[in-house]
Order: sequence, then structure tokens, then C-alpha cells
Amino acid sequence: MTASKQINIAQYLYARLQQLGCDSLHGLPGDFNLLALDFVEGSGLKWVGSVNELNAAYAADAYARVRGLGALMTTFGVGELSAVNGIAGSYAELAPVVHIVGTPSRQNQSQGAMLHHTLGNGNYRVFADIFSNITVAQADLKDPSTAGAEIDRVLQACWVESKPVYIELPVDIVTETIDASRLDTPIELRKQTSDKEAEDMVLDILLDRLYASKKPVFLVDGAAQRRKVMPIAHKLLEKLSIPVFVAPMGKGAVNESLPYFAGVYCGNGSKPEAKAAIEGSDLVITIGNIKSDLNTGFFSYSFSRLNTVDLHYDHAEIGYATFDKVSFHSLIPRLTEAVDPSRLQPGAQEIPRPKTPPPPTSAELFDKDVITHEWLWPRISTFLRQGDVVVADTGTAYIGMWDVGPLPLDVQIISQVLWSSIGYGCPAAQGAALAARDAGKRVRTLCFEGDGSFQLTAQELATIIHHELDVTMFLIENDGYTIPPARQERMVHIEPPTATYNNIPQWQYHQIPQTLTSDPAKAAKITTWKISSRAELDRLLADETFAQGKGLQFVEIHMPKMDGPRLLLQTHQRLSEAEGKGK
Amino acid sequence: MTASKQINIAQYLYARLQQLGCDSLHGLPGDFNLLALDFVEGSGLKWVGSVNELNAAYAADAYARVRGLGALMTTFGVGELSAVNGIAGSYAELAPVVHIVGTPSRQNQSQGAMLHHTLGNGNYRVFADIFSNITVAQADLKDPSTAGAEIDRVLQACWVESKPVYIELPVDIVTETIDASRLDTPIELRKQTSDKEAEDMVLDILLDRLYASKKPVFLVDGAAQRRKVMPIAHKLLEKLSIPVFVAPMGKGAVNESLPYFAGVYCGNGSKPEAKAAIEGSDLVITIGNIKSDLNTGFFSYSFSRLNTVDLHYDHAEIGYATFDKVSFHSLIPRLTEAVDPSRLQPGAQEIPRPKTPPPPTSAELFDKDVITHEWLWPRISTFLRQGDVVVADTGTAYIGMWDVGPLPLDVQIISQVLWSSIGYGCPAAQGAALAARDAGKRVRTLCFEGDGSFQLTAQELATIIHHELDVTMFLIENDGYTIPPARQERMVHIEPPTATYNNIPQWQYHQIPQTLTSDPAKAAKITTWKISSRAELDRLLADETFAQGKGLQFVEIHMPKMDGPRLLLQTHQRLSEAEGKGK
Repeated sequence: MTASKQINIAQYLYARLQQLGCDSLHGLPGDFNLLALDFVEGSGLKWVGSVNELNAAYAADAYARVRGLGALMTTFGVGELSAVNGIAGSYAELAPVVHIVGTPSRQNQSQGAMLHHTLGNGNYRVFADIFSNITVAQADLKDPSTAGAEIDRVLQACWVESKPVYIELPVDIVTETIDASRLDTPIELRKQTSDKEAEDMVLDILLDRLYASKKPVFLVDGAAQRRKVMPIAHKLLEKLSIPVFVAPMGKGAVNESLPYFAGVYCGNGSKPEAKAAIEGSDLVITIGNIKSDLNTGFFSYSFSRLNTVDLHYDHAEIGYATFDKVSFHSLIPRLTEAVDPSRLQPGAQEIPRPKTPPPPTSAELFDKDVITHEWLWPRISTFLRQGDVVVADTGTAYIGMWDVGPLPLDVQIISQVLWSSIGYGCPAAQGAALAARDAGKRVRTLCFEGDGSFQLTAQELATIIHHELDVTMFLIENDGYTIPPARQERMVHIEPPTATYNNIPQWQYHQIPQTLTSDPAKAAKITTWKISSRAELDRLLADETFAQGKGLQFVEIHMPKMDGPRLLLQTHQRLSEAEGKGK
Repeated sequence: MTASKQINIAQYLYARLQQLGCDSLHGLPGDFNLLALDFVEGSGLKWVGSVNELNAAYAADAYARVRGLGALMTTFGVGELSAVNGIAGSYAELAPVVHIVGTPSRQNQSQGAMLHHTLGNGNYRVFADIFSNITVAQADLKDPSTAGAEIDRVLQACWVESKPVYIELPVDIVTETIDASRLDTPIELRKQTSDKEAEDMVLDILLDRLYASKKPVFLVDGAAQRRKVMPIAHKLLEKLSIPVFVAPMGKGAVNESLPYFAGVYCGNGSKPEAKAAIEGSDLVITIGNIKSDLNTGFFSYSFSRLNTVDLHYDHAEIGYATFDKVSFHSLIPRLTEAVDPSRLQPGAQEIPRPKTPPPPTSAELFDKDVITHEWLWPRISTFLRQGDVVVADTGTAYIGMWDVGPLPLDVQIISQVLWSSIGYGCPAAQGAALAARDAGKRVRTLCFEGDGSFQLTAQELATIIHHELDVTMFLIENDGYTIPPARQERMVHIEPPTATYNNIPQWQYHQIPQTLTSDPAKAAKITTWKISSRAELDRLLADETFAQGKGLQFVEIHMPKMDGPRLLLQTHQRLSEAEGKGK
């Protein structure tokens, strides 16, 4: 690429996205982004037309989690506003998504023209103002002379902060050109956030505490995964070989097949051994911990802050002391280098043996051939394979997944424990499967989703079918919203468990996929099942062809209405209280 | 109702909604609104669980257009943000929708607790800030002593401004009680916006101008309809009997079966007689005119402002003079009372006879039995019946509808000419049909929607089926986005008409409805057709059972890809320019 070569602004943006590992652009066409879309072909970027913008945003979020960056293209107003929930979710859940909006011409904007897709009040900043609440950086590309620098600035912020950014691309600037040689200089992806002296101090203290500790443990959580520190953190975990726990949002972050993996900790939601180990420890080193209600067993952590060291991407906390500008990205490699495992206290590397959980209450409730959560999740555990990408939607699906394991190597769990937007599952499976394919990985994408959740975004199956993605979808059919709220709703005094608003109309779910394509070749890659017994499901999971996970495999699993995963059964009462429903 | 009776805040809100004509509450259940939903049963309000929040918002918008007020209940964060596009559309299109959001307890909010459905940053105001951009009034019900007054304030604003409002209902305040006797005092619905002296002056000038004018005409538009002035305005139109035109957004506002109705005016998009009549007039009196791009034939009005009198809900304009605080709500009755038709100039009441439009170019393009737009819309015109509620989605559907007519009495056209959000159709049909049923009207709800639009919100058919609503759905299947952008995209230089992003995956549309229920009784009320010839469609439309419009009737109509309604064929080039695509 020579200094003299000129490319237009759309082409520059698309090239930068690909430099950051994003090879597919999700979204929908609309009046104001068509010209920009004209340049996708030939850019190397793949266009993925989703069924609607919310689905596209969910898909871009999951794509970002697998590839490191995702991108979404919508049109002005109607398009972008349909994606707000998805982008807000990416913000809460630390998914780096670049949201590009095709906007009207600069002239129309400056004149406040009453174009369609406006509020009719001449205000062209409303939508950008809305997105400034849920993105970490914004750029309105109105000046070709700064467009390249602006694009680089927001893409850097997207990657470094691991949160969504917002780019406005006026239709009349798309074809303005800039010097292509800018692309020869990679975007700086690691902002140096560590203050050397502060980091030295944290390092010294950490080493002293480690060598003095009788029962040191790690607690790895979601932010470690999303902020891409795990590749280096694993070296530390392996060198120390002290017990490693994960929080629900950190599920899949660490290699659970290694001996030091000790299980999942979520306060009172934990299994007894995990709870005892963490709460009996004299040094809990957390990496990327996120103290949200569901992730902490409803704020039921019970270990002393004095025994805690929290490592984050932009600061560290030791007991009650906060150290700004100490990033785990630079601290952890130094700690790994400096630490001497032979100086650990005797027994520091003893791993608490997880026992099988006590039989849950649901055991007696149902016929032995009925598919209960108690039976399902351990069975799924043995079905998982190395490299699987597992999407678990909000509710019974992700809560059930917390008890699955130990996971095979490199299994990625994709869910929204903090944002918890039902309907994320199916579109996320599309984005995840596409990302895996773009990465050249021959892996399976499995999706677990409840029927209530599925209905919100069901038609994204069409995109999975159209792009012939490999997705195995397990639809948990339990007659409506047996998500936590529905369960706790059943616990409170006013309405009976049959409260009408939880009884959603039931669909013939397994018949839907075939209606979403008119192409016989694509239809031939769809297989569906409707299953209501353990024996049937067990046979299917044991089938090697099914286990290959090719094409769209849609499995409608019928489960009892009032059943739920162990953690859900244990915690719904606290959830009730947390939401003021206990009163 | 006695002064001593106490009711809780949810019950008060539900009672007020019903006083304003809203008998159904759209939305989805979620953790933070469950307690409020517990009180829907027994309140007289019907709960309508939609399939997702965007669909629910669209449905509430259409419900509001039919009943005068619509209501939407969502949960905090994930739920409300999925509805942003729908509420913004109601803002742009003047649909009075009350958006109620169940929020976390006041204690959790004040502590900034990291609950699920938050961004994880402790900021509980972000979502309300977002909605402050697209609603005209907001209330956060944190104080029982003011909750009643706050509810009344925002409901009044919703009705008077005819725009959406936003109410936050913390879960711990739902059961706080207030004095029920408040309900005995109706909410004041007509804010007096007219300044008597200013109104006198406008009245005098208007009478002089009317008596002096050789060719006075009315141009009635969307804001007249949405702001509920038509019942009184009709008396004026009938008394004067001068030519009355409607703009596209005003389609259905006036009684087109009366002799004074002269057709649709949208600048260069008008038929020749309409264009000549308006542009040759020496007095154009507009009522609720909205000068948006699509509504004005892309800003191609060509008549002198000096000859124009614009009447609006909060001001009037005569030539270049603006009169604040002159509302058509109070001016029009006085004008009707004062005007003496015998003093109009001779010939002032002559109505230009609409001729049939010249045969469009598409006539030669297609086999005579192929269903073209040129054939379809006149045929639909004869299918319409008095009282029909017609939903026309953005694109070919609403543009085609502009040429339909003269409409039978009391036909309501529901579309989004300004906001133009594709996918509005199907959910809007649900809301409209429900509103008609709630109003006790035995009328048909017809919906015209393109395949590209349908895919965004297709699953709302499930709600139509579940509530056994009477909706006849005409799905225009033309292989993808033949909405204006796609058309103009085909006109520009870069991509061929086959630009891949316009070719959406085709579905087996007519097979979908039956998959969306597992209830044989409801399934029995679904009928579907797949039609590709004029003869077939003509037979179906002529069938009396079909014409009854009972249950869900789903008609998949196959039309040629490159065809479009007359107005679309005429204006796509201007649309291209308006969107900077011509450059």
C-alpha cells in the first residue's frame, strides 16, 4: 500500500475493523446506510443481514466475545433505536461492539430538514445523545480531514475499554477519500494504564501475602475474560497451582480440566465445598470480579475484605486500599515472573475436592423419565467437547450452566448474567457460530434457551439457516416464563402460580425452522426434534451424527413447569427480596 | 366511591388509563413489574402479553390511534430499551402512549446496587434520561403523597400533546395506597391554548379571506387526525363545501365519500388535477399540516405562502404572520359558527373532478395476470368497507394506499409516513384490532405489509392468534426490500439492482401462522393463502366469507420484484437526491 493511494472513508473503516479481527458486519440496510453498504463488497468484510436490529446487535455482541471485536451497521433513527437494548447490554457485559449508523447528509442535518426517520422536530442530535449513555466513545464523521483519526480513536476505545462505541457516517461523506497509508500504522491497542511505582508496591505486597498465606485462592470472573487477560493469567494460575474458582460470569474463563480448578463460587449459591474453601481462605485474589446480584448469590459473599486482593484492568484493591493505575494486564505478567511457588506455605496448593451436590428437592417431584434440570445439566456436562461455544440465555439456561462442568478445554460460555436480557440466545448463537467460522475454527455452537425467551427473537433462526451456520439449539419448553421472576412470582402472596401473564401462548417450535427458508438446499441442512423423555434425549446426545453439530439442529425439550436448576431453587427467595417482592 | 376508600398506586394508574379510553395494557412481564402486573387482574384493564417489547410498543401506538390512548408496561432496562424505537415513533407520529416501567426498589436505586438489568455502573437514571428525549412528560413515582398528582400530570400531557409519556413505578411503591376519591375528578383534557384576542384576529382575517377567495381549498393532514380535531373540523368542511384535499399523512382523516373530497395532494407526487387545484388556488387552508419529505412529495409543495393559512393545535400562520396561542380546537368551532357560505365567491364550491391516472410505465412490463401495484391498489379500493381499520406498513404498502380511494366512510388508515419504521405493520394490526374490539366495534382490521418489513416483527402474529383478533393480513412478497431505499439503490451507479444486501432470505410465509399456536381451537381460526395471479386474488376478495374478515386471514401475495406504486415510481429519484444518493 503506497502513501499516494486514496480510499474512501467507508473502505477505511472496514479495513480497520478487519485489522482488529472483525470479518463480518451485522445489521440491516436502510435509506441512509445504503451507500456505505455498497462498499462492503470488495472490502473483505462479510455482510450479515439480520432479521431486525436488536437481533443484529445481540449477534454482534456474541461475535465480539468470540473474535475480540464485533460490528453493527444500522440506519438513522428507526434502525439504531431498535438496537438500543443490545448495545446497552454490550456496555454492561463488556462486549466491544462498533455501532456504525448511516445518517442523512450533512446539509440536511444542518438545515434540520424534516426527513423521514426523524422526530420531526429538526433535532438531529437526539439519537446520538441517547447512545452517548451506553457507548464509551462517539464520532460524528463530518470532516474528511479528521475522519481517519476519529475512526482510530473510537476503535481504540472500543478495544481498550471493551465496551461499545458509536460512529455516525453521513451519507454524503462515505465517498470522501483519505490517504490509505494510515492503515499501515496499527491502532495502539494497549493503553498503558499502570503507574510503575504503584504497581511495584502492589507486586511486593502480593508476593508477601502469597508466601504468608495458608490457604490462598483465586477467584476469576467475567471482566478477566472480556478484557482479554486470561491468556497471560493462565500462566500465573498454572505456575502457582493454588485453588482456582470462577464466579458465574467467569464460567469458561479458566481451563477447568486442570487439577487446580476447584469450582464455581457465588456466595450462598455455591456448593458447600466451594463456599467453605473461599470463605475459609486467608487470601482471596480476584481477577476481574463483578459484584452483581446474580453473580454474587445476591450479595452473599462472606469473606473479609482484609483477606481480599482485587485485580482489575485499571486499578487494584488490597484490603481497604485502592491503587489507581495498576492494570492486571501489566501486573499479572510481572507477578508470574516474580513469584516462587516453592515459597508457598505447605498445603497452599491443596485443592478442595468437589463432592456431588445433595439431591435437590425436585428429585421426588417428577417421574423418573421426565427431563428435570437436576438430570439435564449433568447430562449436558458429558455432552460438551473441547472448543464448544455455548450460548446460555438468561434464566434457567444460564443458571443451569453454572453447575455444568468441569468444562472441557477451551469451552466458551456466552451469557448475560448482569444485563440478563431474555431473547439474547438465538441471535447470539448466530453471531457466535459466525465468529467461530470466520476464525476458521471447526467447533460446535450450542444454544440453550427457554421458550419464553425464544419467542422474543425467534426469527433470527432465518439468518442461521441463510448463512448455513452450525448451531445446535436446545429449546427448553416449560410452558412460559419459568425464569427467576416467574418463579419468585409464584412465591409471593398475591397471585397463584398460574398468574396469566406468565402463561405465554405456546408455539409449535420444532415446526418453525422449516418455514424460515424457501431454499431446498438450505432446508436440507435443518433437523428438528421434539423430545419429552430422558431416554429420547439421552439417545440423541449419544448419536455421533448429532454430536457433530452440523447445520441447524433444533431440539425442543419438554420439561416440567415448576422445575428449576439447583441454584434457582436455592436463590429465588433472595431474588424476591432483592427485588422488593418479599415485602 | 367514598372519600375514605384507599387504593394502591398501580390500581389508581390503571383506573385513570381506563377513564381515558385505554382498556388494554400491552407489554411483557419482567422482574421489576410483576408486582404491578398482579393488580391488573381485577382492575378492569386487560393484559396483552406481546412477543417482545418493540412489538408491544408498536401495538400500543396503533391502539392509541384507534382509542385515543394506549399503554405499554415494560420492565427496567432490558424491557424498556427494547421499546425505544416504538416510543420514538409514537413521538414523531403523535400517538399518545403511556409507557410504564417497573423499576427496582427506591432503596436499591438510592444505594446504586449492582442489580441485573443495570449497566453495572450504579447509575439508575440512564434509562429515564434516554426516554426524556422521546417523551413529552416523565414521572418517577417515588413519593406516595404526590403519586396521584404526578400520574394525572403526565396523563394529561400525553393526551393534550398527543405524544408518549414515561412513568417509573418502583416495585416497592406499587402497594402504597392513596385516596381513591381523586378518581372522581376527571383529568382536564383540553388545555386552553387559545389567546382570545389573537383568535379573534385570526377569525376575522380568515372570514375576509374566505369571502374574497375565488378558489379556496382545504388541505387536511395527519396532525388534525392525531390531535382529535376532525370531529369538529368536519362540521366546517361540510358547511363550506369547498374542495378538500388530504396529504398522505391525512389519508382517512376526512369523509372521502362526500362530494367536496377532491383527492390527495403531495406536491409533485400528486395526480395532475390535485396539483393544479391546490397550486392554482388563492387560499389554501391547511389543518394540521406536517411538512415532512415523504408527506410533501419531497418538499415539492409549490404554492405561495401568501395564499396559505396554516391551522395547528397551538398556533396559526397566515402568510408570513405567526399567531401563537391560537388552537384549531377552539378556532374551528368559532369559524364554523361564524362563516356564511352564501358569501363565498361564485365557483368557490366547484370540486375538481379527479380523472383516472395515466397508465404507469409498469403496465407493459408484466404479464396481464401478474399482480402489479397498478392493478392491486384500485382492486383493494373496491374491497374496502365502511369502518375498516387499515394498517399500511412503510414502503410500497403505505405509498400504494395513498392512491386508494375515495375511501368509504370512517375508514382509518394507520401508517408511519414520518417515522417510517419497517416492521410496524403486524404489531400495529394487533393493537388496532384489539382497540376496535375494546371499542365494541364490529369492524375489519386489514394489514398491508411487505415481506422485508414483515420479517422484523413476524412473531407478533402469535399475539393476534392467541387473543383471537380479527386481522386480515396481506403480505406483499416481492423478494426483499423493494421499499424506496432498495428501489433508489437500484437507480444508483455503484451496485447492480441485485445488490446482495437487498436480497433477504425468503420464508414460507403462509406456513408460519399455524406454527405459532399449539391450541387447536385457536389454530382453527387461522386461514392462509399463497397467491400469485390477479384472477386468484380477485376471486378471494370477492368471496363473502373472506370479506367478513374473521379470525387471522393471512394472504401471501407474490408480486414482481421491480414493480412499485405510481408515487414510488415517480418520486424515487427525488428520494435519492433527498438522501444524498444522487451525488
